[in-house]
Amino acid sequence: MDTDKTARLSFRFTVEPYTEDATGCLSWSTLGNQLLRSAGHHASANGFGYDQLISHNLVWVLSRLVVVMDERPRTGQSYTITTWVKSCFRQFTERLFEVADANGRPMGHAYSIWAAIDYTTRQPIDLAELPDGGFGEILLPSPEFPIAGASRLRLRNAVQQGERRMGFSDLDINGHVNSMRYLELCLDLFDADYYRSNPLHRIELHFANETYCGDLLSVWHEPAADRQHLIEIKKDGAVVVRALLDSTSDNTPAP
Amino acid sequence: MDTDKTARLSFRFTVEPYTEDATGCLSWSTLGNQLLRSAGHHASANGFGYDQLISHNLVWVLSRLVVVMDERPRTGQSYTITTWVKSCFRQFTERLFEVADANGRPMGHAYSIWAAIDYTTRQPIDLAELPDGGFGEILLPSPEFPIAGASRLRLRNAVQQGERRMGFSDLDINGHVNSMRYLELCLDLFDADYYRSNPLHRIELHFANETYCGDLLSVWHEPAADRQHLIEIKKDGAVVVRALLDSTSDNTPAP
Repeated sequence: MDTDKTARLSFRFTVEPYTEDATGCLSWSTLGNQLLRSAGHHASANGFGYDQLISHNLVWVLSRLVVVMDERPRTGQSYTITTWVKSCFRQFTERLFEVADANGRPMGHAYSIWAAIDYTTRQPIDLAELPDGGFGEILLPSPEFPIAGASRLRLRNAVQQGERRMGFSDLDINGHVNSMRYLELCLDLFDADYYRSNPLHRIELHFANETYCGDLLSVWHEPAADRQHLIEIKKDGAVVVRALLDSTSDNTPAP
Repeated sequence: MDTDKTARLSFRFTVEPYTEDATGCLSWSTLGNQLLRSAGHHASANGFGYDQLISHNLVWVLSRLVVVMDERPRTGQSYTITTWVKSCFRQFTERLFEVADANGRPMGHAYSIWAAIDYTTRQPIDLAELPDGGFGEILLPSPEFPIAGASRLRLRNAVQQGERRMGFSDLDINGHVNSMRYLELCLDLFDADYYRSNPLHRIELHFANETYCGDLLSVWHEPAADRQHLIEIKKDGAVVVRALLDSTSDNTPAP
């Protein structure tokens, strides 16, 4: 179907030197940025990219990102990110991703929730009011999608583990701290030996607030179940990001 | 000439979303990693890549990197990195780079010095002893190369500006802190407004030591001439990296 061709778009990547982490696999933050990049290209191809939205004084905001990888590609390996939109409901849209190896075999999946906000008021808009009818024409319900969406992350007894002041090199083109820097702050709670012994399988990132150059962020950690870690990044006591790092190999959301 | 085709290799890139910095240009650290990646691919094509050297228990080590950009590409722009080897002299080889826009017009240049060390003893080898005759066949003397090589960076009255503990996400595939993380530590001395008002033109990085996960690095700063900054990154009092950030538009090395 023609609709499906635009509805579902694929982008090919290769793991280049200096994009791996110390376990030898494509780093989670590089993968995360490539998921966001694929989302951007897909939105543009359908009339709702950054340039198109900003002309209506709107911008996309990422609210949730869940990535589950059964295997991450290694240096020189090619892989494909395919993305499509599952649903639009009032202020939120669900976007899905599949990561597949060069033979088309799935290596992992990702789930995300986005809002579109008014650039001036910072208030989310009703997505039914997106110009030209929005994503309505290209939704793919995807009942068979193999990973769970975002879970509820509740921290009760988190302990502060460290803090870091954000600098120029943490910023994206908009002057906000890059979403994947928060993931790196979470990953840095553990060392390479931990990740080699407990390969990370599922990550969740729940974004609550933007931060900027000069902001001092604190990182709070609470072990959840076995090899599951809940994390909060805070600024002036307020939560900026909640996260889950999960090295268990089943796909059950955290409690 | 056939020799020249291998001697000089070009790699094409496009500035993708999430690889820019807050000034809207390709970030210096992404560019730096792409220079190193191009060096690696060129070395491999000539028989001296990572895989080929490690089979002789040797690895390349970057000693100096100088990058001078008259203009950095912006989102969506394509550019080409061309690299070749200028000289081999005892323990060091000089590798040059040109960065050109989609029309072939130069946007900047880079100069680097590398050594090959024995993986076990960490001692540099005489490059004339590289297997199969080394780079001798493909040297391009390049007398017209438009930028100066590495200068002598001497700090006399540096003041400590901050410190940061290296974590998992700072590491490369070998478990060393990624060379470009040091550059980011230097860049973070200033904010986006500084770089917007004083576009960075030339950077120099002089690498003295490796660092690892858990190492606490301190960053020392000394203003040199107008809009030139000397920086030292230290671990336990010993210099790890010396750097120059230069926003003047002429091409004179720092004093």
